[in-house]
Amino acid sequence: MESILIKKGTVIPCDGRRQVLKNTDVLIQDGKIAQIGEVKQKADIEIDARQKAVLPGLINAHTHLAMVLFRGVADDMELIEWLEQKIWPMELHLTADHVYWGAMLGCLEMIKSGTTCFADQYFFMDRVAKAVKESGIRGVLSYGIIELGDPERRKSEIVKGTELVQKFHGKANGRILTMYGPHAPYTCSKECLLEVKELARKHNVGIHIHVSESEGDIKNTIEFQGERPIKFLEQIGFLGPEVLAAHCVKVNDEEMRILKQRNVKIAHNPVSNLKLASGIAPIARYLREGITVGIGTDGAASNNNLDMFEEMKICSLIAKVRENNPTVVNTWETLEMATIGGAKALRLENEIGSIEVGKKADIILVNLRSAHLAPMHDVVSHLVYAANGGDVSDVICDGQIIMKDRQVLTMDESLVLSRAQEMAMDLVERAG
Amino acid sequence: MESILIKKGTVIPCDGRRQVLKNTDVLIQDGKIAQIGEVKQKADIEIDARQKAVLPGLINAHTHLAMVLFRGVADDMELIEWLEQKIWPMELHLTADHVYWGAMLGCLEMIKSGTTCFADQYFFMDRVAKAVKESGIRGVLSYGIIELGDPERRKSEIVKGTELVQKFHGKANGRILTMYGPHAPYTCSKECLLEVKELARKHNVGIHIHVSESEGDIKNTIEFQGERPIKFLEQIGFLGPEVLAAHCVKVNDEEMRILKQRNVKIAHNPVSNLKLASGIAPIARYLREGITVGIGTDGAASNNNLDMFEEMKICSLIAKVRENNPTVVNTWETLEMATIGGAKALRLENEIGSIEVGKKADIILVNLRSAHLAPMHDVVSHLVYAANGGDVSDVICDGQIIMKDRQVLTMDESLVLSRAQEMAMDLVERAG
Repeated sequence: MESILIKKGTVIPCDGRRQVLKNTDVLIQDGKIAQIGEVKQKADIEIDARQKAVLPGLINAHTHLAMVLFRGVADDMELIEWLEQKIWPMELHLTADHVYWGAMLGCLEMIKSGTTCFADQYFFMDRVAKAVKESGIRGVLSYGIIELGDPERRKSEIVKGTELVQKFHGKANGRILTMYGPHAPYTCSKECLLEVKELARKHNVGIHIHVSESEGDIKNTIEFQGERPIKFLEQIGFLGPEVLAAHCVKVNDEEMRILKQRNVKIAHNPVSNLKLASGIAPIARYLREGITVGIGTDGAASNNNLDMFEEMKICSLIAKVRENNPTVVNTWETLEMATIGGAKALRLENEIGSIEVGKKADIILVNLRSAHLAPMHDVVSHLVYAANGGDVSDVICDGQIIMKDRQVLTMDESLVLSRAQEMAMDLVERAG
Repeated sequence: MESILIKKGTVIPCDGRRQVLKNTDVLIQDGKIAQIGEVKQKADIEIDARQKAVLPGLINAHTHLAMVLFRGVADDMELIEWLEQKIWPMELHLTADHVYWGAMLGCLEMIKSGTTCFADQYFFMDRVAKAVKESGIRGVLSYGIIELGDPERRKSEIVKGTELVQKFHGKANGRILTMYGPHAPYTCSKECLLEVKELARKHNVGIHIHVSESEGDIKNTIEFQGERPIKFLEQIGFLGPEVLAAHCVKVNDEEMRILKQRNVKIAHNPVSNLKLASGIAPIARYLREGITVGIGTDGAASNNNLDMFEEMKICSLIAKVRENNPTVVNTWETLEMATIGGAKALRLENEIGSIEVGKKADIILVNLRSAHLAPMHDVVSHLVYAANGGDVSDVICDGQIIMKDRQVLTMDESLVLSRAQEMAMDLVERAG
């Protein structure tokens, strides 16, 4: 494996010390970060990082990747109409091919905007795994289990979830990881959730689930389970440090205590929560309580992109207006949520999420020589409040350069765009 | 003047009919839009617009352009501390040179992100006019009058405001327009506001003023004027169709009626209002009431960029969460606010803001062949929810190509970045 030397960059390690290291080199050997500082030795590949920020690859803590196919197919609708009239009729016709090309398009978009790791929940996950393998990105994949209390369906759904874990966990040099993905407390019965909890323990993987996204979500859970989502999950003994809870928008004081006590991880999706008018999650309070928060884009159908820079900015902005306080969720807190916070949310903080010696080399370079990033007073401020995904110049994942000067090296970009377009048109036609 | 033919684009005229014209040509002659449709005749310059959206240049309805120099100098602070400790000490040292290079940087950033017209309020406005003239963009400039009831200061401030109007209104082939810019009802006395009102009538220009930005703003106005801002302005006879009121975040039912009755124009600044935790303006309601709304970025110091695509997205998103309704402020309404709505807000709707025969040719091209804009279901959705300023490929203002394939033709980009950096560092040093 070729060694890589990133020369003279503005390095932002995101290692908890909130340092910006100017004019600093980073050496990558055998896929791992080997040295940070002034590196004298030569490497197989050298990257000139002057006028570039060097930071950990961003981590998208919650998405449904193949839903990029539905980007812009319907907007500005009530959630239930949007699902029933637009999304579900198309999802009914999804095949493995659709999901593969959707996932390829999603991987392409993520790489081009500086995301190196994502937590996904969807269907035909073997095809998402194939896209992850080919694109060179890192993915934590879960099959979305929906059984609505039907014992037959429970059985088959859980089999699919387990097959993904057994077949793919740790594959592609460890770039593919897996979780169980029971969709939500209003779509999975107590029996289903407890079986998943036990299987996740047995296979030593996490659990990715939607929790308290909206008032409708809470109403549906009370109807189905007789209790609000977090209270219900606590009562049945489901919650724990392995649980990645997407959303947690509508959370009362008691539920906040439960999340903290059980060390549940939160995937916050600011844009999707706004677009569906779900609300603004109490992120400032989660951080004050010491609860781990990562940032996600959710599916592109309710976003409508996968740009984690935009997501960081909006995350910080809406926290301020929610608390009526411009000082909360500051630049460093926000950047940390998108890097090391996301890694912690996925329980990968010992492997990725920061630039530290010994960690896997998931690193991005951001071009700082640009009108909207000038003048340079504070690079972290610029990354959070002024940059966008298009400013990312180079992407390294697992020690491999997968984008160089905005050219993705692992994929045929033109082919992916064309095939994804065909797949999307096919779904629109099939759904009539 | 060279004629320009934009060939086979996806044209979004924003003329109120909400049409998307595929595979359509736009002919520009003598700086104006001459034909839309299939154009047979030849032109001096042809632009291939296949796989590009062709739309009116975006209009930034409220900014303080030279404040790009303060981008990222201080974030996440309480408004008053931010002003007193950071912004004002630097503004004290502002010279004409600082403002010129700040305005040049701002023009560069706006052009690169598809803005062709902006409404500005700041100091040393002759230097902003110079930057507008050189960069090729369109600007509606106002000198920020602050007199705090001091008769001497009132006199000198109003002289500066009038000098700008007299010297620059209509210059640079009409690309430079002017307004009076009394800062706000809590910084300008009744006498000052009434004098400005009369002078604006005399010179036939508009008035650009900050109104009801935050609770603090309202409190200050009550202290200074004995009444809430809009009520006060109504009582003294200040409001009218020539008034461009920036912000209008905190507005009660009575004030809403006044704004409508007086046909006041609103410049909505979603990002700045969030970042300073001022609140979320009731934009859905303004639109329902038929009040004219344009979108602005405010100064980059509280944004921290001038990207109107980002501003459109956040405008739509926060309106939904404010109303608890995902259907409000939809894609078309949002795009219209950033184009023809902005033109109406500046009372320029007969000249710019849409692609219609006879209007001045302020037109931008957006590259649609990109991972985050694929697949193509709905181009307006992509422009509002998925695109960013970096997707703009070409910019035409007043019939001149000022950006071609992302190269700004009117400015030395490298020089502007370097000089703006020097100016910013100088201000930081002077402010100690």
